[in-house]
Amino acid sequence: MSIINNKVLVIHGPNLNLLGQREPDVYGRLTLEDLNCMLREKAAELDVGIEFVQTNHEGVMVDAIQSAEGCFDCIIINPAAFTHYSVAVRDALAAISVPAIEVHLSNIYRREEFRHHSVTAPVAVGQIAGFGAQGYVLALGAALDIMKNRSVK
Amino acid sequence: MSIINNKVLVIHGPNLNLLGQREPDVYGRLTLEDLNCMLREKAAELDVGIEFVQTNHEGVMVDAIQSAEGCFDCIIINPAAFTHYSVAVRDALAAISVPAIEVHLSNIYRREEFRHHSVTAPVAVGQIAGFGAQGYVLALGAALDIMKNRSVK
Amino acid sequence: MSIINNKVLVIHGPNLNLLGQREPDVYGRLTLEDLNCMLREKAAELDVGIEFVQTNHEGVMVDAIQSAEGCFDCIIINPAAFTHYSVAVRDALAAISVPAIEVHLSNIYRREEFRHHSVTAPVAVGQIAGFGAQGYVLALGAALDIMKNRSVK
Amino acid sequence: MSIINNKVLVIHGPNLNLLGQREPDVYGRLTLEDLNCMLREKAAELDVGIEFVQTNHEGVMVDAIQSAEGCFDCIIINPAAFTHYSVAVRDALAAISVPAIEVHLSNIYRREEFRHHSVTAPVAVGQIAGFGAQGYVLALGAALDIMKNRSVK
Amino acid sequence: MSIINNKVLVIHGPNLNLLGQREPDVYGRLTLEDLNCMLREKAAELDVGIEFVQTNHEGVMVDAIQSAEGCFDCIIINPAAFTHYSVAVRDALAAISVPAIEVHLSNIYRREEFRHHSVTAPVAVGQIAGFGAQGYVLALGAALDIMKNRSVK
Amino acid sequence: MSIINNKVLVIHGPNLNLLGQREPDVYGRLTLEDLNCMLREKAAELDVGIEFVQTNHEGVMVDAIQSAEGCFDCIIINPAAFTHYSVAVRDALAAISVPAIEVHLSNIYRREEFRHHSVTAPVAVGQIAGFGAQGYVLALGAALDIMKNRSVK
Amino acid sequence: MSIINNKVLVIHGPNLNLLGQREPDVYGRLTLEDLNCMLREKAAELDVGIEFVQTNHEGVMVDAIQSAEGCFDCIIINPAAFTHYSVAVRDALAAISVPAIEVHLSNIYRREEFRHHSVTAPVAVGQIAGFGAQGYVLALGAALDIMKNRSVK
Amino acid sequence: MSIINNKVLVIHGPNLNLLGQREPDVYGRLTLEDLNCMLREKAAELDVGIEFVQTNHEGVMVDAIQSAEGCFDCIIINPAAFTHYSVAVRDALAAISVPAIEVHLSNIYRREEFRHHSVTAPVAVGQIAGFGAQGYVLALGAALDIMKNRSVK
Amino acid sequence: MSIINNKVLVIHGPNLNLLGQREPDVYGRLTLEDLNCMLREKAAELDVGIEFVQTNHEGVMVDAIQSAEGCFDCIIINPAAFTHYSVAVRDALAAISVPAIEVHLSNIYRREEFRHHSVTAPVAVGQIAGFGAQGYVLALGAALDIMKNRSVK
Amino acid sequence: MSIINNKVLVIHGPNLNLLGQREPDVYGRLTLEDLNCMLREKAAELDVGIEFVQTNHEGVMVDAIQSAEGCFDCIIINPAAFTHYSVAVRDALAAISVPAIEVHLSNIYRREEFRHHSVTAPVAVGQIAGFGAQGYVLALGAALDIMKNRSVK
Amino acid sequence: MSIINNKVLVIHGPNLNLLGQREPDVYGRLTLEDLNCMLREKAAELDVGIEFVQTNHEGVMVDAIQSAEGCFDCIIINPAAFTHYSVAVRDALAAISVPAIEVHLSNIYRREEFRHHSVTAPVAVGQIAGFGAQGYVLALGAALDIMKNRSVK
Amino acid sequence: MSIINNKVLVIHGPNLNLLGQREPDVYGRLTLEDLNCMLREKAAELDVGIEFVQTNHEGVMVDAIQSAEGCFDCIIINPAAFTHYSVAVRDALAAISVPAIEVHLSNIYRREEFRHHSVTAPVAVGQIAGFGAQGYVLALGAALDIMKNRSVK
Repeated sequence: MSIINNKVLVIHGPNLNLLGQREPDVYGRLTLEDLNCMLREKAAELDVGIEFVQTNHEGVMVDAIQSAEGCFDCIIINPAAFTHYSVAVRDALAAISVPAIEVHLSNIYRREEFRHHSVTAPVAVGQIAGFGAQGYVLALGAALDIMKNRSVK
Repeated sequence: MSIINNKVLVIHGPNLNLLGQREPDVYGRLTLEDLNCMLREKAAELDVGIEFVQTNHEGVMVDAIQSAEGCFDCIIINPAAFTHYSVAVRDALAAISVPAIEVHLSNIYRREEFRHHSVTAPVAVGQIAGFGAQGYVLALGAALDIMKNRSVK
Repeated sequence: MSIINNKVLVIHGPNLNLLGQREPDVYGRLTLEDLNCMLREKAAELDVGIEFVQTNHEGVMVDAIQSAEGCFDCIIINPAAFTHYSVAVRDALAAISVPAIEVHLSNIYRREEFRHHSVTAPVAVGQIAGFGAQGYVLALGAALDIMKNRSVK
Repeated sequence: MSIINNKVLVIHGPNLNLLGQREPDVYGRLTLEDLNCMLREKAAELDVGIEFVQTNHEGVMVDAIQSAEGCFDCIIINPAAFTHYSVAVRDALAAISVPAIEVHLSNIYRREEFRHHSVTAPVAVGQIAGFGAQGYVLALGAALDIMKNRSVK
Repeated sequence: MSIINNKVLVIHGPNLNLLGQREPDVYGRLTLEDLNCMLREKAAELDVGIEFVQTNHEGVMVDAIQSAEGCFDCIIINPAAFTHYSVAVRDALAAISVPAIEVHLSNIYRREEFRHHSVTAPVAVGQIAGFGAQGYVLALGAALDIMKNRSVK
Repeated sequence: MSIINNKVLVIHGPNLNLLGQREPDVYGRLTLEDLNCMLREKAAELDVGIEFVQTNHEGVMVDAIQSAEGCFDCIIINPAAFTHYSVAVRDALAAISVPAIEVHLSNIYRREEFRHHSVTAPVAVGQIAGFGAQGYVLALGAALDIMKNRSVK
Repeated sequence: MSIINNKVLVIHGPNLNLLGQREPDVYGRLTLEDLNCMLREKAAELDVGIEFVQTNHEGVMVDAIQSAEGCFDCIIINPAAFTHYSVAVRDALAAISVPAIEVHLSNIYRREEFRHHSVTAPVAVGQIAGFGAQGYVLALGAALDIMKNRSVK
Repeated sequence: MSIINNKVLVIHGPNLNLLGQREPDVYGRLTLEDLNCMLREKAAELDVGIEFVQTNHEGVMVDAIQSAEGCFDCIIINPAAFTHYSVAVRDALAAISVPAIEVHLSNIYRREEFRHHSVTAPVAVGQIAGFGAQGYVLALGAALDIMKNRSVK
Repeated sequence: MSIINNKVLVIHGPNLNLLGQREPDVYGRLTLEDLNCMLREKAAELDVGIEFVQTNHEGVMVDAIQSAEGCFDCIIINPAAFTHYSVAVRDALAAISVPAIEVHLSNIYRREEFRHHSVTAPVAVGQIAGFGAQGYVLALGAALDIMKNRSVK
Repeated sequence: MSIINNKVLVIHGPNLNLLGQREPDVYGRLTLEDLNCMLREKAAELDVGIEFVQTNHEGVMVDAIQSAEGCFDCIIINPAAFTHYSVAVRDALAAISVPAIEVHLSNIYRREEFRHHSVTAPVAVGQIAGFGAQGYVLALGAALDIMKNRSVK
Repeated sequence: MSIINNKVLVIHGPNLNLLGQREPDVYGRLTLEDLNCMLREKAAELDVGIEFVQTNHEGVMVDAIQSAEGCFDCIIINPAAFTHYSVAVRDALAAISVPAIEVHLSNIYRREEFRHHSVTAPVAVGQIAGFGAQGYVLALGAALDIMKNRSVK
Repeated sequence: MSIINNKVLVIHGPNLNLLGQREPDVYGRLTLEDLNCMLREKAAELDVGIEFVQTNHEGVMVDAIQSAEGCFDCIIINPAAFTHYSVAVRDALAAISVPAIEVHLSNIYRREEFRHHSVTAPVAVGQIAGFGAQGYVLALGAALDIMKNRSVK
């Protein structure tokens, strides 16, 4: 596979559109727009192209993942609730050749039992969980590293 | 939270649009439209505003729940099939400040093993199951009670 | 089965006699007597006969259920702790022809894992959980509806 | 242990007092009194003393089992619902030296999953299930056999 | 179904041919031949025809069960080890119209965990366990009772 | 139910739109369009009407299933990832009177543990798995057989 | 592997010899002989050699599977009860190079829990379940397809 | 909560009334009366008031626990068989403000699997198991310590 | 028990007759006959009598085990597939006084989950797994050791 | 076994060295040294020799337990984290003849699920949990009692 | 808590000392020393102090974690094998106030079932898995972020 | 890999140092030193170099395994208690190229449930269990065989 444009697609899962508006003492006052801005700046700094999708619809997430093929070099995905049951999202990630990095804002291993299991993690390159918005920045760093290694080969 | 208009949003989950048309000896001949009419009359009687959504799409249900924030004072929701696996619906209910009442037409504890578990019940105020269409009327009564108590505070 | 006197038997399970005296910030200051009064008034309003039993003894609950046959048209039961293991209470409810409505003050699906399972729910008409004292009023409404439908047939 | 009077105590568990009055097409029209009469005649025929207890109360069953010590040579017990959870009944049966025979009217292995497990069977001599009222007659035969073998020793 | 000849087929499962020769302090010194003799006498007394099969081969047991159709009025079967896994034996018992009684010499509920589950019990009329050789005599009594009731109808 | 037009609706689940483009050494080079062509020809040969739907959206699949009522005589469905968790798809299949045949390209019993369980199979007529594209042709044969038998009655 | 004679071996498992004679309202009046005739005709039509084995003995089934090597090009097998526990049958199927197709008359996913699991399916090419006798005809079609593809290579 | 009279209530569960009379080689020859005497003396020595209840009835145990409120400063309870299933006893202990100490004569972790789980331990202050009658003396010491600390505050 | 002739019976389970003919790159080219020859030579060297049985039939294996009593001093058994479910084989091994050594060619703990559990191992002296044909030679050494120790006593 | 010097070895498991320094509002301000002092005084009072070990190393704990043989008459052990998985500690306790008493500061049955299970409790004399530092004092009392009874014999 | 020196302690668990020497095609040729060098440079660049520990001993890891208190501002830990069972390591991490970041070289969710569960993750700030050596660099970034936020407060 | 010196490292796990001193009626009077002597002689006889390690420390066992690389040609290991939980030992065995043979003195499949599972067996060549000290001699034979085969290649 050849590298396209050093482009990264960030996919935010269900209910992440409410970020910053709800339970601000838990999740902070950073909105999804703030988070995306922060990532856009960071990406510019790293000379990486970046685009964003947020959806509450599993089918839209599957479509977005599929459409990354040939357009993006890496996916950063927070499947949110879909993490725990969406085999469709897993199969989409497995079907494309674009590597994906799974991110979670909270430490899912501290939460309810059913959040400890991820059906998508086994088909991602790796998982970053528990670092809040900073987790996405770390994922961007990981993406850059993956894209560099790939372009070398 | 301040009370808006004593308004209730009723959300019907997947396949409930077929109510009354299929297996009428099991579910009766009452259609979803009949049920909504009945609730509309009951709501008028109680001086409660009421609106209805039916969807077979999980994402649409998540959107509907999110949009209730600031527009409705209570949600009556029959997540139907989503009850048993949709963490996305659960997270949406947990993310908003509008209280929700879970309703099931049938007694789900008499049915298949997998229907005994509800992922949404822990984030609802409570659950009413097994009373057919009457269960929605009971839920309306419960909603009224919740809205009264809230406005007092 | 013919309707007797539009009479409802309310059965309160173990430790409900302490209602209002213990953990008032959790369960409120309403005592069991207050709750029964409220129901008695509501029943009078609806022209429904009503009687009450509270017991900490499983055997007494089984006896009470059995004795409802031929004397009451509907049972409203909060089996409390017995909900989770008393097959004897389940078998008693299954053995009589009087329909029963299961009520829980708290949302049992939010509590300890072992409280999520009810051995009695499958033999009740339905279950109402999480609405506090109001849940009994809802159950009375459901009982009335059941008795009306029955007398018609 | 010495044999007393070739005396057998029959203990009927919860809800068996309703035998013959409820679901006659399932359990037949034989009442508990009819069953006991039948057993009394059979016992007389075999020159065996026989007494009966029926209770819906677990504690009364434990007391009855304990009091058999020194008064009866064998117990025939249908713990009914208690079969599946009453460790107290199990411990009582294990604590006395009188041998017990467990009887079930129905074939519990054809019924709900939770009825397949008996906490009392491991401390009984054996179990007879699925032969209706006839099961008690078989148990009386087994009791006679046990008492004979014992008196020989 | 019409009654043929008041004939009973007794089927002994794997390793029962070693009865009386092995672990005599556990199982007694009664051999399988002794047991069959005892049953033959008892059957003669009750004017019941009786035949015996013993096999260590699951397929032979299935054949024997199938061949009972039209030749015997009742089966007494001790599936021994097959009790716990032979779906083939279960299906054979379910496929024929001859009623079967399951017998176990020992109280299987006192033994290893895996012996507590019987795949054949749900398709038998009932189960008698823990009474040693006497269990077969009890089964013969049960068989007689079943055949009588059937011929009446 | 009367036969309409000998019409079959083929529903392809999530990620099947990528067929032939991805992992061609695993799934072959046959695209979904090729597969549909093949089926269209086969259907023409058998004088059966045929239409196709492919969707990555659970809600769209539920809608498609519902809309088959009164328009199609048989459904051939490969629910793909939805097979393993979509109770909504199951309930849709159960709600309509059109019989459905479940098809899987791969032998799901050879794959990950979570793919061994199908929530939809119990409401389908039957399941065909492991025969690749040929499995759809077999399903078409089965559909024809079901439609013939039905029209006879 | 070279193709021999386009020959198919059909193996019927335990109790299938009773087909048509028992529970005709469930399984229809088609006997195993009728089924085999139907398949023989169909095979002749397709110019495929066909032979049949039916056995209630697991060992005979293992022998039959082993002897297919070098004599048949495909096996169609309905392991019946053995499906759920016979590792010996599984190992035999895995040991030979002849491809096998698993067939079940009924939809095993609608039946008892223990019938949902197949120990043989993972070593078969695929599985066809729920189409009655027609399932064997479908399997013959699948076999033909497999043999064609193989001979090409 | 204020300290009343340094009074301790000892509650003995089902079958403990047989202590010393049964299986003396296992449990020793100490009767329940002996045990209570020993505790009475020890209590006198420590200037602690003490009273005893023994019951085979779950409901009586619940009543006894409830009545401790305002009369006793500490409960020492051996729930015996109820330890493993009585949610009613658990709820009673949780409902009162009197602290409870759970005692078991035997080391329950050495016995049958089902005795390893205590439903009451999570609502007790702590648990003492395996020290025979001495365990009650230790519990009395713990009770004294708890009462002292409390009166200080 | 007295030692007979220092004789060992080797029992090979289902599908082991295919050894060396199938998957030679996995299991090597050694046939069962080669293996037996190797063991015969080794036994001659050690002055031990040796005989061999191979069967695909569970019943034949049970018969072979039973017939070892009084004829052989030790059994070396590779129950193959039967290892994982044949309670009949287990019961046969438990019923005789001849000690048995369980052998597996492959390391069963590296294979499918269901192969990790052996129902026969608990009644064998010990188990040797993972050493290929050499495992039988080791077992012969172990057998010699067992026979020596026994003859001494 | 003869009594040596009425000597007790107290073994504190991993992280107990931090006692009193961390989370003082949870565990109090008592340090491990304070606790040991308190026990030393108590032991002097009772004329019992006492020594202490604290280790974060499983192997050191095993060594300490082994070395108690012949030097100490009783062990008081708080295995802390090792309680839940260290079979090595369990085996060491089982291998020596010195009786051990298991102590836990907190009520482990109120904490995370994985802390409810103790692999060491079955080989200890008994367990004392939930009484804080006082639990060690109780254990010392129990140890004295055990040593007295032993010296008598 | 005050910030000390912006110092990070990196703890490498068992068998990580073999990094680069074993299975280089899997884990690459980077040795642990190389990895530490890389981190040392990166840390210098970020003006962060850094130290390293590698141990195969659980107790040494517990000691190292404890000693971080007051000396380091953040821990980066790869508990390796200890991740899956060492409650001692978990308790140590929970006992100190220094925040910890869990790192895994491989994506543990792609490996054996038992590696999917981490007993340490719930007490870490978060987890980074699957990015090889780069994961440590990401963790260093996360550590910096945590230390910055902390010093601000 | 080239053969070094035909050298074998024997690793004895926790508590094996007590062999012969404890429970001599169970494990015999053979001490670990006796066992090692016996193996030393046997090794000399076979012209195999042999060395021994015994440790109660998991970390020491991991170190010992690692250090075998390049020094020994085969490991014989009895991980004792570590067998059941030490992933660190498993990972060490997997990390080196020296083949390992797992030995257990007792038949672990006859003991407590938790001893039936070995986390180390899947990475060993094979397992020998239940033959006492003789098991090590068998393992030495197996080691010789493995070393011979290896040197040939």
